[in-house]
Amino acid sequence: MISSFQTPDPDFAARVRASFARQGAMGLIGAQLQHVSPGRVLIALPHHASVSQQHGFVHAGIVATALDSACGYAGATLMPADAGVLTIEFKINLLAPARGPWIWLDGQITKAGRSISVADGKAYEAGPPATLSHEAPEPRKLIATMTATLMSVTGRGDVRH
Amino acid sequence: MISSFQTPDPDFAARVRASFARQGAMGLIGAQLQHVSPGRVLIALPHHASVSQQHGFVHAGIVATALDSACGYAGATLMPADAGVLTIEFKINLLAPARGPWIWLDGQITKAGRSISVADGKAYEAGPPATLSHEAPEPRKLIATMTATLMSVTGRGDVRH
Amino acid sequence: MISSFQTPDPDFAARVRASFARQGAMGLIGAQLQHVSPGRVLIALPHHASVSQQHGFVHAGIVATALDSACGYAGATLMPADAGVLTIEFKINLLAPARGPWIWLDGQITKAGRSISVADGKAYEAGPPATLSHEAPEPRKLIATMTATLMSVTGRGDVRH
Amino acid sequence: MISSFQTPDPDFAARVRASFARQGAMGLIGAQLQHVSPGRVLIALPHHASVSQQHGFVHAGIVATALDSACGYAGATLMPADAGVLTIEFKINLLAPARGPWIWLDGQITKAGRSISVADGKAYEAGPPATLSHEAPEPRKLIATMTATLMSVTGRGDVRH
Repeated sequence: MISSFQTPDPDFAARVRASFARQGAMGLIGAQLQHVSPGRVLIALPHHASVSQQHGFVHAGIVATALDSACGYAGATLMPADAGVLTIEFKINLLAPARGPWIWLDGQITKAGRSISVADGKAYEAGPPATLSHEAPEPRKLIATMTATLMSVTGRGDVRH
Repeated sequence: MISSFQTPDPDFAARVRASFARQGAMGLIGAQLQHVSPGRVLIALPHHASVSQQHGFVHAGIVATALDSACGYAGATLMPADAGVLTIEFKINLLAPARGPWIWLDGQITKAGRSISVADGKAYEAGPPATLSHEAPEPRKLIATMTATLMSVTGRGDVRH
Repeated sequence: MISSFQTPDPDFAARVRASFARQGAMGLIGAQLQHVSPGRVLIALPHHASVSQQHGFVHAGIVATALDSACGYAGATLMPADAGVLTIEFKINLLAPARGPWIWLDGQITKAGRSISVADGKAYEAGPPATLSHEAPEPRKLIATMTATLMSVTGRGDVRH
Repeated sequence: MISSFQTPDPDFAARVRASFARQGAMGLIGAQLQHVSPGRVLIALPHHASVSQQHGFVHAGIVATALDSACGYAGATLMPADAGVLTIEFKINLLAPARGPWIWLDGQITKAGRSISVADGKAYEAGPPATLSHEAPEPRKLIATMTATLMSVTGRGDVRH
């Protein structure tokens, strides 16, 4: 995929990686940042018992948590260095049980706006992150889709990247 | 609130509590089951650093995880003892940052169908669960709303309550 | 219902009614504006063959069209006189077939923000608008629910009330 | 695009076209069925004053109405001849004002299930349908995206194709 997006911040990748590292929730669920490019972020999540629901699948909310981060950071890659990104709302469709062994979360910007952006995300079952990759490894199976509406926020001390 | 729902399973509350206890994800994020009645489930979640996003608020996905469980179990209260509940999709609007110190998740059934049900959930900032309560404690502040579409599944060995 | 919302525009009702009259789509489907108060708008829609889908029910999209207008104008009641309202996104759950003879659309603001607001709407089957009413007439049946995210826009010549 | 979907009904296209013709709402708004293949339906809608909102754009609900039909009929192409399709819920993001002169609605199945299917739709501004086409004509501009959850219904006399 050749990205068609321009970013105003040449240090977008370092900014996103530093912000991801500050998300306690990403550490708690074991999510790993795999890829950051303008308008796109890829996260890998191992399936372990502590993120399961009652049937042993990964909890839909945990899939949503990691996919929301992928979508939100995809938006952050296109924002100025002093802006923060907030998720206004998201919707997720669970297409199949999230069995694993790994779940890959692929967030991509569909529409980048000055204040409002829209990201679409896909969650896949796939293998572990063996090498640097810009895609979830094959064979992969689509298990969820998300649409997220993001807002760029500046001048609020409590909301920064 | 007087519930207008009838449940086919007199042991619905014990069934929901046992299923909740099997959700690794609920233990991981520290969610506590507070109230179970026909068509309604209330969960309390303490705000701690491990469920935060980069600004220190509770991660939107973690709020969604607990609220999805509240909505799903609200649906489970009205299903037969041998049915499992799956979330087909949900949408969440984040109305305000989730600061805490506690987040309360209130899931209620809006429409109970034979196979498809719809639940609406609300997330509040409020105080800790001091006493048995059927409501998030006052003063409380609405911070998120969810609509979830649920499916009742029977005869699948991998999806039970 | 006692509304808790304050509006910055004392002429909000006249502004909403004039804008509604300019919506070709509302005339096309036969929608009638019934009630306007701060944070709330009620619309009534007669079921006729020209708004049906293939089974003879009112088309889900037509229900959504009228309900989106109810939600959007509920937001407009709380905005300054020079602002326009745009729907960023909405989600609708269809709970039951829309048989009629009338469909009532009730849009209410859940969260009023400076730029972003959230409205929740309900669609009911009910009787015709016999008298001035702030509610869909009883007996009524809930047939759809909507959540809409709205944006207040100023300074754009092509988007005014 | 080479479709990867198999349909159980060799007459799916005639069935969809006949059903579309029975939708009063499609006639009312002037929607035209352009393309039907397994898992995909394309509709074209001319912009005229009678489908507008107050700013002169095509009303978001009218875009949603035609896009919901595109998504629903995309699902219908993959269903048995005796099944009916119902939209359980949909969500639409409005990315840009729908100016026209034509709006194209492209509905595609993302996940085909026995009872529940998920369709994703895109709405474009583009030119008029000059020739038979499997795509909205270039140049085109993406103006809305939809995700719809569909249910296949059999044995209900009031819900047939």
